[in-house]
Amino acid sequence: MKTINIGIIGYGVVGVGVATLLTQKKKLLEARIGAFLTLKTIAVRNISTDRGVELGNTVLVNDAMQLVNDPDIDIIVELIGGDTTAKQFILKALENGKHVVTANKALMAGHGNELVKAARKNQVDLAFEASCGGCMPIIKSLRESLVANDINSMSAILNGTCNYILTKISQDGSLFEDVLKDAQKLGFAEAEPSLDVDGHDTAHKLAILNSLAHGMEINLKDIHVEGIRNITPIDIEFAKSFGYTIKLLAIGKVHGDHVEARVHPTMIPNTNPLSHVEHSMNAIVIDADATGKTMLYGHGAGMMPTASAVLSDIADIARNIISNTARRVPILGYPEDNIKRISILPMDELYTRYYLRFEAQDHPGVLSQISGILGDNHISIKSVHQKGRQSNGKVPVVMITHIAKEERVQTALTQIYATDSVVGDPIVIRIEEDS
Amino acid sequence: MKTINIGIIGYGVVGVGVATLLTQKKKLLEARIGAFLTLKTIAVRNISTDRGVELGNTVLVNDAMQLVNDPDIDIIVELIGGDTTAKQFILKALENGKHVVTANKALMAGHGNELVKAARKNQVDLAFEASCGGCMPIIKSLRESLVANDINSMSAILNGTCNYILTKISQDGSLFEDVLKDAQKLGFAEAEPSLDVDGHDTAHKLAILNSLAHGMEINLKDIHVEGIRNITPIDIEFAKSFGYTIKLLAIGKVHGDHVEARVHPTMIPNTNPLSHVEHSMNAIVIDADATGKTMLYGHGAGMMPTASAVLSDIADIARNIISNTARRVPILGYPEDNIKRISILPMDELYTRYYLRFEAQDHPGVLSQISGILGDNHISIKSVHQKGRQSNGKVPVVMITHIAKEERVQTALTQIYATDSVVGDPIVIRIEEDS
Repeated sequence: MKTINIGIIGYGVVGVGVATLLTQKKKLLEARIGAFLTLKTIAVRNISTDRGVELGNTVLVNDAMQLVNDPDIDIIVELIGGDTTAKQFILKALENGKHVVTANKALMAGHGNELVKAARKNQVDLAFEASCGGCMPIIKSLRESLVANDINSMSAILNGTCNYILTKISQDGSLFEDVLKDAQKLGFAEAEPSLDVDGHDTAHKLAILNSLAHGMEINLKDIHVEGIRNITPIDIEFAKSFGYTIKLLAIGKVHGDHVEARVHPTMIPNTNPLSHVEHSMNAIVIDADATGKTMLYGHGAGMMPTASAVLSDIADIARNIISNTARRVPILGYPEDNIKRISILPMDELYTRYYLRFEAQDHPGVLSQISGILGDNHISIKSVHQKGRQSNGKVPVVMITHIAKEERVQTALTQIYATDSVVGDPIVIRIEEDS
Repeated sequence: MKTINIGIIGYGVVGVGVATLLTQKKKLLEARIGAFLTLKTIAVRNISTDRGVELGNTVLVNDAMQLVNDPDIDIIVELIGGDTTAKQFILKALENGKHVVTANKALMAGHGNELVKAARKNQVDLAFEASCGGCMPIIKSLRESLVANDINSMSAILNGTCNYILTKISQDGSLFEDVLKDAQKLGFAEAEPSLDVDGHDTAHKLAILNSLAHGMEINLKDIHVEGIRNITPIDIEFAKSFGYTIKLLAIGKVHGDHVEARVHPTMIPNTNPLSHVEHSMNAIVIDADATGKTMLYGHGAGMMPTASAVLSDIADIARNIISNTARRVPILGYPEDNIKRISILPMDELYTRYYLRFEAQDHPGVLSQISGILGDNHISIKSVHQKGRQSNGKVPVVMITHIAKEERVQTALTQIYATDSVVGDPIVIRIEEDS
């Protein structure tokens, strides 16, 4: 049997998971793949810390370039994250003819097109199943299983921290800030949470998935991104009373020559399978022309689920090495020459339904003024809901609109904000009728 | 670009779907795979019927052996079903060095081991993604994505007809026979429904999936199978009152050196994601050691979802042909030499919880007699529920047991049936606490 040498850069949570699988599942992997997968070297900042993995002959080194330049190593696994040194290591590894596996969504979303070109130039593989949705085989499904489908739309819960926080607000009626603090204590949220709670991590993943789904260049910068900081128990209660749930969704849809790509809190009906995805679980619903709707559901992060996805990439590349067929499946699902530059629909052009909540003054004429401004902007109201009076003497007024244009909704909200009928920023949550 | 010639045997619903994708998605498939996929010949009983597909140069023939013996054809797609002529065609195609794609679960479940051996002997591929769960990439996930995992358990809804009928009974409170008749009128159930409603189709799929999950020979005959004919609105109402749902599940679990493999109506809590899978949708929850629980959900049957799965197999084989690497991934997930003969735990040895419903005589001492017999058989009762009185003067009595041994439960039920305390066969529904 052939021996395939592997080097891991980064020995944090996921790195330890990958090393654990490569050592503990050595026999299983050999039996299934028909090659020896040998973990030759791990590059780690602090060599002396024991991570509890029985490494055998694996060497720990400080300098990642030592792995990248080691002629014996066939596959480099990049697990340090970030988009500076990680990028340098990967580019150099590709240049040295090594196949690369990475879990780095920020890097793939921001610099993926460049990395794909470098892999092509050097005729090697670049794999990143672990970058989106942890152990869920989203990338393999888009690249291989759905090969004969045109993807109409995707909607997905891709950030476990946000989903955990929204689930807790919904279950306990707590405020965002309090749930976040608890989540940080429990290790479900980072000390610096903005990458997660402001939606950027979700946007990274959507940029990658949109590329795979539609054969388009990776485009992060044009994705509209909103996080969950403004979501309150009041809005979740209103949603419940309508039979809806609020989730932070990544939404990608085809619209003629454009693609819609947006990340924001979204109200979905309880008939949508994503509404039942709770705590830190992830899920994606893909609507394709031949399959109809399919859903994948699983752990989107964590040591072993992420390591499992990395191993699936390693196995694919190992099989390619054995059969001498690098780049058997195109990196982005389409051969590089067929990848189009498809533009993302500007957010102003979006048509959807809206949940709008105002803190209204409790005096006559307010409802008429708000609905008048909406009407002037061609926004038609489906229903109005009012619930008691808040401690500050204001009344929360909720309006559900029919389908309206985002640009007009934003104009109307600015005009309503300028009146003395409401206090504070109106809350805007877009509604998806179906996933 | 290379041309890969395809022959389809069987031009029914799925055959038309595959021909439609191969013609309508010609450009997409060429762009993604980098080869011309040419539908050279279709074998069909009645050549003259127009199925509405623009076939171009494809030739329709009567005699499937003409395709099987055509030296120009690279891939044979078998879509006639059944396990007699389909088997002959496939064996001959493999012998002639052709790769075979099939959607035939009955054949794979009953004769898969023999077909796998024949494919090995002739060094060709045999693919069957469409045999289990329609468009859901179950087989690709088990063979490739979960490569570094040991599978602890699978539980799945794999028959759309049964799930549709159970959903309708649950929603409308109708009787099984009436829902079945309606389903037959609407085309959701076959005129001869027993393959579906008696659980055999689900067992075929479980036999295939168990093999892939555990690296074992395909074993259909030892799977315990019960269907849904006995499920009544009364049981579904009781289940609802406990926060449970009744689904026909395929269950496969590892138990030391044995594997548990059973198909029967099952009560699952509403926290189990399978409980939300309604109508004709299919889903599978796989619990693996690295990933934890993942779920796939989608259309388990139908023209285009099934055709999409067939195309995913065709694409895989086409990529193998282009790169001259047949049998890149072992057919059953493990190389043939590593496939073990693992025995299935006899049903009598099962330990689980039970829902038991008796039609009890409404006189004193009945409860004491039933619970006495259960106690004598070491079956401990968790709760007893009694609801009104039925029109026949009998009282439905429901008992939920703690974990008990199947053999003892069956003995107790026989003893209870022999008393004059109950009328008719007791209803037994096994409970799975978690998927």
